[in-house]
Amino acid sequence: MAASGIRLTRSVRAKPCRSTSVKQVLALAKPPRQQSVLRAVATAQPITVPDATKFDFEQYMGSTAKKVNEALGVAVPLEYPEVLTESMRYSLLAGGKRVRPALCLAACQAVGGSAEAAMPAACAMEIIHTMSLIHDDLPSMDNDDFRRGSPTNHKVYGEDMAILSGDALLAFAFEHIAVETKGVAPERVLRVISELARASGARGLVGGQVVDIKSENVEVGLDTLEYIHLHKTAALLEASVVCGALVGGATEEQIERMRVYARGIGLAFQVIDDILDVTKTTEELGKTAAKDLASAKTTYPKLLGIEKSKQVADDLIKNAIAQLDDFDPNAAAPLVHLAKFIGYRQN
Amino acid sequence: MAASGIRLTRSVRAKPCRSTSVKQVLALAKPPRQQSVLRAVATAQPITVPDATKFDFEQYMGSTAKKVNEALGVAVPLEYPEVLTESMRYSLLAGGKRVRPALCLAACQAVGGSAEAAMPAACAMEIIHTMSLIHDDLPSMDNDDFRRGSPTNHKVYGEDMAILSGDALLAFAFEHIAVETKGVAPERVLRVISELARASGARGLVGGQVVDIKSENVEVGLDTLEYIHLHKTAALLEASVVCGALVGGATEEQIERMRVYARGIGLAFQVIDDILDVTKTTEELGKTAAKDLASAKTTYPKLLGIEKSKQVADDLIKNAIAQLDDFDPNAAAPLVHLAKFIGYRQN
Repeated sequence: MAASGIRLTRSVRAKPCRSTSVKQVLALAKPPRQQSVLRAVATAQPITVPDATKFDFEQYMGSTAKKVNEALGVAVPLEYPEVLTESMRYSLLAGGKRVRPALCLAACQAVGGSAEAAMPAACAMEIIHTMSLIHDDLPSMDNDDFRRGSPTNHKVYGEDMAILSGDALLAFAFEHIAVETKGVAPERVLRVISELARASGARGLVGGQVVDIKSENVEVGLDTLEYIHLHKTAALLEASVVCGALVGGATEEQIERMRVYARGIGLAFQVIDDILDVTKTTEELGKTAAKDLASAKTTYPKLLGIEKSKQVADDLIKNAIAQLDDFDPNAAAPLVHLAKFIGYRQN
Repeated sequence: MAASGIRLTRSVRAKPCRSTSVKQVLALAKPPRQQSVLRAVATAQPITVPDATKFDFEQYMGSTAKKVNEALGVAVPLEYPEVLTESMRYSLLAGGKRVRPALCLAACQAVGGSAEAAMPAACAMEIIHTMSLIHDDLPSMDNDDFRRGSPTNHKVYGEDMAILSGDALLAFAFEHIAVETKGVAPERVLRVISELARASGARGLVGGQVVDIKSENVEVGLDTLEYIHLHKTAALLEASVVCGALVGGATEEQIERMRVYARGIGLAFQVIDDILDVTKTTEELGKTAAKDLASAKTTYPKLLGIEKSKQVADDLIKNAIAQLDDFDPNAAAPLVHLAKFIGYRQN
């Protein structure tokens, strides 16, 4: 696979990805002509975090997850053919922090929109996330038997049902937005659909997943690593935030701020994932530690060292929060706390 | 699997499917209280086929396929990561009659719309059809090595890429409609998206595929057979026609007529498929003949006999064409000929 890996790296260098890179994104808020994330974040300005002492983040996440779980349960009922809808619900209602829906609802709130208007889009984010996990776990992909301590979808329902459940969930996400989003201009709903579809496909998480697979056991550079994480992880976080903002009636400038915010926390999420893999035990993580080392995977700590990686993550989070400076501090408090939650998580 | 098969059959009987059944659909044009397709079509009225002596169907299909192929090639360019987009294009541009896009464009034309407005939706129909073929061919599904004489997607690109290509195509279909449909009211475009998404998911082709898989080597009744074909085959044909009509500015009554038309030809398509499997040789079909018999699959000829099955198909086609009586005969000529093409095909 070495040849393929080299080609991938070259491709990334030879032609810019269609989607704006972190560099370009950070450039919106920074002096021009920065050449890498590292240099970009190194010049981050001091940030003003809205005073949100009264904001109870745990309570917010708990009540949001509850509402999202209820909405998901209603959106995907158990119906004929039961073997299919049961399999869809098995993975969809398996718990989790519901970070993507929370980001979507919080972004909507940050621009003055209502949670009701954003709930279908918020659910769609979780539906797409779930389908990507079901397919990623398949034997021909990551071949995982367990997820969050439970057997993976294909271990319970078979590989054929797992593939079909993922397909059904993917299609349903768009139907759900199109049919259930109320009180929002249809042009905006169409933008939400195209934003999410793009984030889900070849120019989003599928593209990231493909480059990740083809980079296994291959030395790749920072550009390719960034491509993988911006697409595999950050794209759906970005869609979550941008779609919430779109539904909430954001201005174009607000949408672009939200985009920078989301890419920052998306990339930071992955840098931190790499750091935790090296620094934490399997018990602390709740999943196998040192997995990246075992699989000879390229990571931020390997490329930059742990201290520098921590600095990158920290700067990305600070820069993300700085994007929210011009928003109402109270309305933006959930987004600020979500960034910190991602930036300072320990597992 | 016998227990599961029995349960499925019972479910179909115990509770009506959410989507309107053929019976209900035919009832729109027929006296009420018909209980089965057979009885429904037995009472079909004499039909008036628009005089379309000047219409060159072969030329129409050829030029339509050419335009659709060009549009598909532009819609899904070869770009980074090339292994993914090459795999998507491999299956998408592998030829075929492009029946679904033709139905979409013809339906748009039948209500006075322009082909340009319907082209993104027409492409989306083929994109969804292609993704369903890629996933159906997978080892854990039908495990097919060849399709139209060429190796299946996973035989060329591997199982992981085939799954991911299908996912990327599915997501892209909705993005393409949302971004590229021009000159159509956004509310209509949203209806197109929800119509197609529904047809692609658990209440459409994925649902049909699941019941088909779970009915293998199980004796199922006519209700279940109808469910399978209405969902696995007819749903996407229906979406093609209805979405074309929606984009073309059809009235609600025209849309319902189109829906009945499409369900009729969709079900007829499958009845004829079953008949051809019994009556034709492998050479004549271009695929393995008598496959259904070998796999102990429930088919229309098995349930009704060949002659009765032929009568059902014929009546379904005639009833479909009868739905077009109130349309301008010239504008509707392509739809009439498409119905005949499906009804009287020999392979």
